[in-house]
Amino acid sequence: MLPERLGPGSPVLAIDVGGTTTKAVALAADGTFGDVVRRATPVVSADGEEIVTLVERLLHDTAPQPRSLIALAVPGIVDERRGIAVRADNLGWRDSPLPELVRRRTGHRAVLLHDVRASGRAEFALGAASGLTDAVIVTIGTGISAALRVQGRDVVRGGYAGELGHVVVEPGGEPCACGNRGCLEAIASGLAIERRYRALSGYTAQGADEVLLRADGGDHHARFVWESALDALATAIAHIDGLLAPQAVVLAGGLAEAGDRLLQPLRERIRSVFPAQRAELRLSPHGRDAGLLGAALGGRAGAEER
Amino acid sequence: MLPERLGPGSPVLAIDVGGTTTKAVALAADGTFGDVVRRATPVVSADGEEIVTLVERLLHDTAPQPRSLIALAVPGIVDERRGIAVRADNLGWRDSPLPELVRRRTGHRAVLLHDVRASGRAEFALGAASGLTDAVIVTIGTGISAALRVQGRDVVRGGYAGELGHVVVEPGGEPCACGNRGCLEAIASGLAIERRYRALSGYTAQGADEVLLRADGGDHHARFVWESALDALATAIAHIDGLLAPQAVVLAGGLAEAGDRLLQPLRERIRSVFPAQRAELRLSPHGRDAGLLGAALGGRAGAEER
Repeated sequence: MLPERLGPGSPVLAIDVGGTTTKAVALAADGTFGDVVRRATPVVSADGEEIVTLVERLLHDTAPQPRSLIALAVPGIVDERRGIAVRADNLGWRDSPLPELVRRRTGHRAVLLHDVRASGRAEFALGAASGLTDAVIVTIGTGISAALRVQGRDVVRGGYAGELGHVVVEPGGEPCACGNRGCLEAIASGLAIERRYRALSGYTAQGADEVLLRADGGDHHARFVWESALDALATAIAHIDGLLAPQAVVLAGGLAEAGDRLLQPLRERIRSVFPAQRAELRLSPHGRDAGLLGAALGGRAGAEER
Repeated sequence: MLPERLGPGSPVLAIDVGGTTTKAVALAADGTFGDVVRRATPVVSADGEEIVTLVERLLHDTAPQPRSLIALAVPGIVDERRGIAVRADNLGWRDSPLPELVRRRTGHRAVLLHDVRASGRAEFALGAASGLTDAVIVTIGTGISAALRVQGRDVVRGGYAGELGHVVVEPGGEPCACGNRGCLEAIASGLAIERRYRALSGYTAQGADEVLLRADGGDHHARFVWESALDALATAIAHIDGLLAPQAVVLAGGLAEAGDRLLQPLRERIRSVFPAQRAELRLSPHGRDAGLLGAALGGRAGAEER
């Protein structure tokens, strides 16, 4: 859910490369958005060329023109300053200089952003963390990762801050794309919920949403999967709160679109694993489009730097 | 283990109020320390008067004189700026203005410090986090709590940052002083290790050290208690690392005096629950005296503010 419009600024093409779907939207100089275009994320080789080809296609498939810059948000470990996509467990690149490759192929200047830090930017600028100095934005989509602001400053740590999706919450549990087992992301991401439900029930749900609907309808397998996801998320958020006591923890990404059906049971569980909780648990108003909006904002900031 | 001496500065009496033992040391103007004096921490009522009486005694029982200020480090939630000991689960005060009470009773100016943030100060100034901009000092004594520095600045959040001892790591597990069950502190603090071993074996060990010795000697109960403490600590540290990716996590407090017998198995476990670990795991050189040293440093800083 993108906002109706932003203020005037540089026209940019914002692209959010997800673990399964890539989304693109053109932001015009007058602050209006074109239609959001969705494409399956390709299988990517180490050099990342398939992403460059996808960007080239999206340049043609989106409107309106012109664009002064392409903002490319990607998951995993990302070195934004040097423009290097280091690695992402669900995708295949390794130390790929994606913005430089895009510039060479398309002639457009590009900036590389980390998808979850881009979501964070959207929340701090226009969303549930607007005006806060201390907040953690937890994005739950194909993977799980967080963007942090502490005492008014973003915490990046070379791209390694916020990588909580690969902390083991169930030792010996579900296998994870990272090679380990029982990671938060392998239990509680949207993809994990879908996959775990399929493994238990034999039924392929249309995303985590359908698993949640089935859990509400009394399906035992769906309920088990959903409740263990909630437990794992509550544990991770309790650790965030115990350590940083931020003003808010904001849930973004696809799973956040479940709204109160996510928020209410999660609040209860956090209270039981950390009664001293300080942070307010909030939902992103942008849901699965937080990364795309953040890429648009980051793209404008990048375009205006020159 | 206090350093041999500090530089010259104001003479202060440093007091570290622990859950079981209170320690005091006089730091002379020439930077030398007097003998460390230990007293049992009294049962404390809501107004904290018993602590004031203890401070009065320690003023007489320590040498050398004179003191320009008393630095009082206490556990729990502490509002250092306003000088209010808010609460500590193991002790009885509630919103007690301890430094003001000490001044009235003894005529000496006093400053209130949080014990674990005082430990942090000692590590950043003179210990295992010296020169670091991003580190978390985890103090494991009667309780478990952490001091944080992020991007060069201490994170306090009104006294609520670093309160990770009360995050539940074993739902439904050991009862904790806070009223909940299965808190990190109820599994892995020095006191918890001692208490859990007594509950299993019927034997009263002289501190966590003796339980650890017995575990090394093949005692099954001791081994179970020690290994579950290590697992719980590894989980908590993995969450710290996943979120903040600090340069180092420093272990301080009494349990840190176990040295490599703590460090080596903990390193292995952290690697297994968070292979992407970034922080170096280090031991405080000050062990159970980190809080006392930090109080001495904080006292000097306070004395020199006027």
